[in-house]
Amino acid sequence: MTGARRETIKIAYIGGGSRAWAPHLMADLALSPSLAGEIALYDIDREAAAANVTVGRSIFAHSDARSHFSVEAVERLADALDGAGFVILSIEPGPTTLRFADLEIPQRYGILQTVGDTTGPGGALRALRAIPIYETFARQIMESCPDAWVINYTNPMSLCTAALYAAEPAIKAFGCCHEVFGTQERLAKLVSEWFSTPVPDRREIRLDIAGANHFTFASAASWNGIDLFPKLREMVATPDFFADHSENARARKSAERWFESDGLVAFDFFRRFGALGAAGDRHLAEFVPWYLPSEESLHRWGVVLTPYEWRVRRMASLSRREPDAPLSPSGEEGVDQIHALLGLAPLVTNVNLPNRGQIPGLPDGAVVESYALLDRDHLQPVVAAPLPATIEGHVRRIAEVQGMTLAAAGTRDRELAFQAFLFDPLVRIPTDRAARMFDEMLRYAKDFLPAWRA
Amino acid sequence: MTGARRETIKIAYIGGGSRAWAPHLMADLALSPSLAGEIALYDIDREAAAANVTVGRSIFAHSDARSHFSVEAVERLADALDGAGFVILSIEPGPTTLRFADLEIPQRYGILQTVGDTTGPGGALRALRAIPIYETFARQIMESCPDAWVINYTNPMSLCTAALYAAEPAIKAFGCCHEVFGTQERLAKLVSEWFSTPVPDRREIRLDIAGANHFTFASAASWNGIDLFPKLREMVATPDFFADHSENARARKSAERWFESDGLVAFDFFRRFGALGAAGDRHLAEFVPWYLPSEESLHRWGVVLTPYEWRVRRMASLSRREPDAPLSPSGEEGVDQIHALLGLAPLVTNVNLPNRGQIPGLPDGAVVESYALLDRDHLQPVVAAPLPATIEGHVRRIAEVQGMTLAAAGTRDRELAFQAFLFDPLVRIPTDRAARMFDEMLRYAKDFLPAWRA
Amino acid sequence: MTGARRETIKIAYIGGGSRAWAPHLMADLALSPSLAGEIALYDIDREAAAANVTVGRSIFAHSDARSHFSVEAVERLADALDGAGFVILSIEPGPTTLRFADLEIPQRYGILQTVGDTTGPGGALRALRAIPIYETFARQIMESCPDAWVINYTNPMSLCTAALYAAEPAIKAFGCCHEVFGTQERLAKLVSEWFSTPVPDRREIRLDIAGANHFTFASAASWNGIDLFPKLREMVATPDFFADHSENARARKSAERWFESDGLVAFDFFRRFGALGAAGDRHLAEFVPWYLPSEESLHRWGVVLTPYEWRVRRMASLSRREPDAPLSPSGEEGVDQIHALLGLAPLVTNVNLPNRGQIPGLPDGAVVESYALLDRDHLQPVVAAPLPATIEGHVRRIAEVQGMTLAAAGTRDRELAFQAFLFDPLVRIPTDRAARMFDEMLRYAKDFLPAWRA
Amino acid sequence: MTGARRETIKIAYIGGGSRAWAPHLMADLALSPSLAGEIALYDIDREAAAANVTVGRSIFAHSDARSHFSVEAVERLADALDGAGFVILSIEPGPTTLRFADLEIPQRYGILQTVGDTTGPGGALRALRAIPIYETFARQIMESCPDAWVINYTNPMSLCTAALYAAEPAIKAFGCCHEVFGTQERLAKLVSEWFSTPVPDRREIRLDIAGANHFTFASAASWNGIDLFPKLREMVATPDFFADHSENARARKSAERWFESDGLVAFDFFRRFGALGAAGDRHLAEFVPWYLPSEESLHRWGVVLTPYEWRVRRMASLSRREPDAPLSPSGEEGVDQIHALLGLAPLVTNVNLPNRGQIPGLPDGAVVESYALLDRDHLQPVVAAPLPATIEGHVRRIAEVQGMTLAAAGTRDRELAFQAFLFDPLVRIPTDRAARMFDEMLRYAKDFLPAWRA
Repeated sequence: MTGARRETIKIAYIGGGSRAWAPHLMADLALSPSLAGEIALYDIDREAAAANVTVGRSIFAHSDARSHFSVEAVERLADALDGAGFVILSIEPGPTTLRFADLEIPQRYGILQTVGDTTGPGGALRALRAIPIYETFARQIMESCPDAWVINYTNPMSLCTAALYAAEPAIKAFGCCHEVFGTQERLAKLVSEWFSTPVPDRREIRLDIAGANHFTFASAASWNGIDLFPKLREMVATPDFFADHSENARARKSAERWFESDGLVAFDFFRRFGALGAAGDRHLAEFVPWYLPSEESLHRWGVVLTPYEWRVRRMASLSRREPDAPLSPSGEEGVDQIHALLGLAPLVTNVNLPNRGQIPGLPDGAVVESYALLDRDHLQPVVAAPLPATIEGHVRRIAEVQGMTLAAAGTRDRELAFQAFLFDPLVRIPTDRAARMFDEMLRYAKDFLPAWRA
Repeated sequence: MTGARRETIKIAYIGGGSRAWAPHLMADLALSPSLAGEIALYDIDREAAAANVTVGRSIFAHSDARSHFSVEAVERLADALDGAGFVILSIEPGPTTLRFADLEIPQRYGILQTVGDTTGPGGALRALRAIPIYETFARQIMESCPDAWVINYTNPMSLCTAALYAAEPAIKAFGCCHEVFGTQERLAKLVSEWFSTPVPDRREIRLDIAGANHFTFASAASWNGIDLFPKLREMVATPDFFADHSENARARKSAERWFESDGLVAFDFFRRFGALGAAGDRHLAEFVPWYLPSEESLHRWGVVLTPYEWRVRRMASLSRREPDAPLSPSGEEGVDQIHALLGLAPLVTNVNLPNRGQIPGLPDGAVVESYALLDRDHLQPVVAAPLPATIEGHVRRIAEVQGMTLAAAGTRDRELAFQAFLFDPLVRIPTDRAARMFDEMLRYAKDFLPAWRA
Repeated sequence: MTGARRETIKIAYIGGGSRAWAPHLMADLALSPSLAGEIALYDIDREAAAANVTVGRSIFAHSDARSHFSVEAVERLADALDGAGFVILSIEPGPTTLRFADLEIPQRYGILQTVGDTTGPGGALRALRAIPIYETFARQIMESCPDAWVINYTNPMSLCTAALYAAEPAIKAFGCCHEVFGTQERLAKLVSEWFSTPVPDRREIRLDIAGANHFTFASAASWNGIDLFPKLREMVATPDFFADHSENARARKSAERWFESDGLVAFDFFRRFGALGAAGDRHLAEFVPWYLPSEESLHRWGVVLTPYEWRVRRMASLSRREPDAPLSPSGEEGVDQIHALLGLAPLVTNVNLPNRGQIPGLPDGAVVESYALLDRDHLQPVVAAPLPATIEGHVRRIAEVQGMTLAAAGTRDRELAFQAFLFDPLVRIPTDRAARMFDEMLRYAKDFLPAWRA
Repeated sequence: MTGARRETIKIAYIGGGSRAWAPHLMADLALSPSLAGEIALYDIDREAAAANVTVGRSIFAHSDARSHFSVEAVERLADALDGAGFVILSIEPGPTTLRFADLEIPQRYGILQTVGDTTGPGGALRALRAIPIYETFARQIMESCPDAWVINYTNPMSLCTAALYAAEPAIKAFGCCHEVFGTQERLAKLVSEWFSTPVPDRREIRLDIAGANHFTFASAASWNGIDLFPKLREMVATPDFFADHSENARARKSAERWFESDGLVAFDFFRRFGALGAAGDRHLAEFVPWYLPSEESLHRWGVVLTPYEWRVRRMASLSRREPDAPLSPSGEEGVDQIHALLGLAPLVTNVNLPNRGQIPGLPDGAVVESYALLDRDHLQPVVAAPLPATIEGHVRRIAEVQGMTLAAAGTRDRELAFQAFLFDPLVRIPTDRAARMFDEMLRYAKDFLPAWRA
């Protein structure tokens, strides 16, 4: 636990070609004086991996860098994994154009989705594509680097992580997500207003967290020992607090600010159920049947649909890191987690792990989100404070839907996969129409679902 | 166990003024040579009770009668219960016009219900009215006749029965329903077609049953040792089997044959999930979000909505039993159950009881429907054959909604009652609209919800 | 359900060479006019099987016989099973001289056992020998006659039955034991005394039963609707009821009446825990650490140890059925069970089955004893009335010990088998002495534990 | 979280008159620059409390002191608790002479106990005395200082802590024990030998801990990232490692070094079950039936019985703290825990809390020992790494015995208390002798069991 120690490690980075995650992680590594070693990049998109090599090398060559990692792209998954102490998984299961199947086909059947990568028909189809890939990852990891810690960033987070454990129960994997940070940040701003104080660091906002990834809830929140829930209750009881935010939504839509909201959905959960939604409104709205009967209904909460065509457009235009820009911390926790698991500084943070007691009301083995204690080669979930029973009911249902999808994907069981579809809160159309929708979706994505019957 | 024995018993019949149940039970009693004794009728509607006295006396005076019971209407609940060996509960929680709140208000918010007395917003509101009454029943029963067997026929069946146990855990109560008989009858007709045999008695159709009342499923069916599921699978795979039945529905609507259907919903469950719905389609359709997005959608399955105004009209015009009509068995099982509990003839039948192992995947204590063994002063549930996991998931959710409603009614907790509303599969409207609907419903029924805040 | 039906079946009888069971079953079959068919006897002791053929043929040729079965001994297990509708398992896992290891070796280490074939070190070692044989049976049954009903009579009953399910989860097996009948008979005699009535048939004594085989308890008992527990409580409160019965024990010992007792242990459970032991005292005494610190202690309860040398002597001298003796019902229920499973007459009786809800406080999957409903090709456990919590605790512990032994036998895991030994209530000697005892026992029986390290 | 903060708190110290705990805690407080405030001492032994005031004042007046607390003895429990932020419970439930009932009476019946304050007949009787006192504490705490953190040091630790929660479920209490530290210290010494390094601080030995207090197990141990279990396995496999240590025991006995052992019992658990006993041998030996059949048997493991007469003698002669002695840290963690709960420095340590998921195999609600995360006004158990199943079985049984004792004490149910006695692993004598022993024990302690029938 002395700062002077410097650990030499190999990190395998799988996927991540077209995303900001790899540069962020490499920048954070470069700013960490306690680490050194090598990064092996593997992506089925070779060009993307090569581009990341260039970015990575420029980062570690940057004058701000306080550590050095060599950066190489490798040809085979096994080469990346061989000898790795840490494995980062951050892939796109199929080209972005597949989001058409995830989003546009359901929409034609009247099922709107704000994100469609975690839950709902889109999340399920994405899971069906990703799970077999994750099975392969799990098996190769246990062959090449069974002692490595595996950090998953891919969505659907819970199901990808669950697929690793389903294939290899002894794997040391967990899923990470920054949505909870956003809730801390939102509360930090409120603290600043309420207590006329500078906006505190998000880490000063203490939450009691439990749920499934992207459908996580804070059953308590405090700052500096002050319970924030009474203040929040006051705030949401203000007459106009839940006024129609359609105007905001329309402005966001025309400005293409898809990811922005006012947290009204998170606060609606707070008002109705007593726990604060601890993810973005776009995510929260998809897990229950109340917010998405129509685009108009959604707008009322200030939330907008992210259009499919924009997603395709954006992927094509994502610009790379500017090499001369100063290195700055990303705000992500990946490197802090690596530090903790190396024994450099213990960390308590929210992670996604198979449930083995941390949230007693949720199914055993389901991948759930809670705090965990990260320490030298140890990752132990902390038993979460209980959620309000009715919130737990909604989360349990999601965990059950995911359990069915996982089982269906594992056995390529088309009927079970459809039963999981029907159990999803967003699917409230007649069963025969749902069956047609499901067929269309599978057919569209069939090249990426090789083991399934057409 | 000798047929020659004749047991003398007192039966307390609570409610039942305006329904066919009391005459049916009395006719069945009159046809049973093993029983004799007295029937004490108690109804807050004194006229209705008096009318039943007249009917009852004419039944036991009938030349077909093989047993004698005296029939009296009493002024106080305690008088009816005092010394009773059996208590029959069959009440209407509030006047029929309250069904307006149960059915019409939700409909204005876009929530259609085919029955609305068991589940959905209507079933929940009805439960909020009935549960306090059932608490009173339970307490008076434990004071007046703690050893009596209590048979409940009132809907919502599960919640009324659960309310008895919540108030008095030592009560000897169970709920009875004949919906499963209808499934046996439907299969008996199919057996006749398939095997060119006369239609067998419904009791010859052996089902494996599990579920919540009105949302019960057969995971197996056989006749004469022949598994009927392969035949059923063949039948539902016929190309036109699930063709649009809207024409049937329209014919039913214009003929006011509200209770009729083709079983298409029951078979749709069979096709999609592998277990046969074992209740009428009108009931099954309400427990899931797929069949009721619109009246048109519902008609497609051959099912029609029972209109509120017809219900009111019917109640006004219900004719009484014709005194000279011959006595014939009702097809109900109440008297067989009384026989069994007196030790005259053991019986295995489906009943509703708090779960204590009979359906391991459903919550402990929730009132569930399964087979049970009835024997001299003994009622023991039989462990049900497992349901398909996805069907069990849907039933579990219903059991959870009911658990919330029960808790809310017990503590008059308005917020929890609303949370239960939101958890119901039929409620998929925005939360603020749902809150307005809930307020309207409570306000309309407020005279029958005395302990609740307006 | 018409008496006129006659079912033609094949019964495979496995083992049973040297026991009374096969003649009993054949006599009961011969007295059943509803059955006919063939019996295939298979025993690794060919001579014993041949002797049973002679006995069987004489039974079916007897003038009292009302049905006919052909009786053949076959050379291979598969031949016996092929086409069988029922399989009876009743074997001795190794020669009687192995009881030396089961009984005498533990005794040298200070561990007395009254029976030693179900629990304790002896029961465990016998299980280690029997389980691999039962795995073979299960696999061959699922190959040769997967739809057959399998009735096990071999001890350790729970573990042999559990081994069938562990090897083949879809097997239709259950274990049968008549110990509960003895409790009914004891109570029938008391009823006769208490109510000055002729001794009623044991079936008229209604018990609520739950437990593990040979460690089963009645949580209620009634006759003719009269609760017998108040009478029992009075009886055991009589000042001298629990007086020292050593004299009885000594008389039994010298008369070699090993199986006789006064039920004092069963009644001691009743007095201390509120549930009546529903098995013979010899069995009950072995499952807890209180009755067997010394032979003298045991005698105090009127119970005696069955000596090893007598067992060997008896096996050598067992006489065969006298061919001219009239056929009389055995009092066993095997044939009634066959009737029920053929759909001839439903039956409710106590059987041993994997727990899936019938005794909620015991481990899921453990083979437990409870009532079950037997009907045409159906066997469904009835949810047992709850045992007193402390009794349930003792049974749960036995179920846990058995679970460990089953797992150890399944994987031939010597360390786990020893851990199970140490968890047995009878093993209260130092761990190193226990380890030596375990080694000696394994070594003695090593020829019958082929897959284990010496 | 800045070191410069100084928190002002009131600590209520209940009991502790004659023990070293109060001086230790006060010394640790005096050495903490971040704290200040007042200590209110309450003891039914007024003299003892007064003596502690003198000691306490001398400590805070000491030149080594870096903080100041006022120290007062108060007359009434409520005065001590009023306004307290922390409550320390450390009482003796009845005079030391009552240990006669706990230890000597069982010994006359052949039941030896090494400690007799946690488990076994002695632990149970002590629990029966302590639980009503703890109920009173809980109720007064919730009245006087419901937000205070309550730290219990009294044995039986689990049951005293459980009694607080049974009486007041919303209480913020936990139990603390240093036995695990001893295991860390033992391993630290071995690390020093094995790796030729100075003895590391015990905190550097990382254990995975789970169990019930004094019957806790390490399922893993590491130092500096090095797994220590392979080394331990080697060590215990050394031929003479488990040789007879009777000579050591005899030496200890004659030198009155009762608390000393060689850890052989802890290592025997490791050898037999794969988890290392993480409490002193004196404690571990009492929870299973293998080590205490006789004093000789116990000596074989190098462990000795602490005689009752010495305990009495010692209490009379306990000397007080020497006022001029330098202040030194006690090695206990109480003050670190206070720091953590004030938000000064988060701490992960082992505590005793009602199980709500931290050890999934143990009963819900039972007070179990595991790691927990202590943070500003937060105490959350960490989900423990799974114990070997057989060890968990032994712990579960202890938790069940304790659950019975708690229920019996709460309702003053003599029969249930005796059933709990019989379920204890040490009680293996005939039930009638056990009943006599139980009667004698209750009679001896009857003045301290006021609500019980004689």
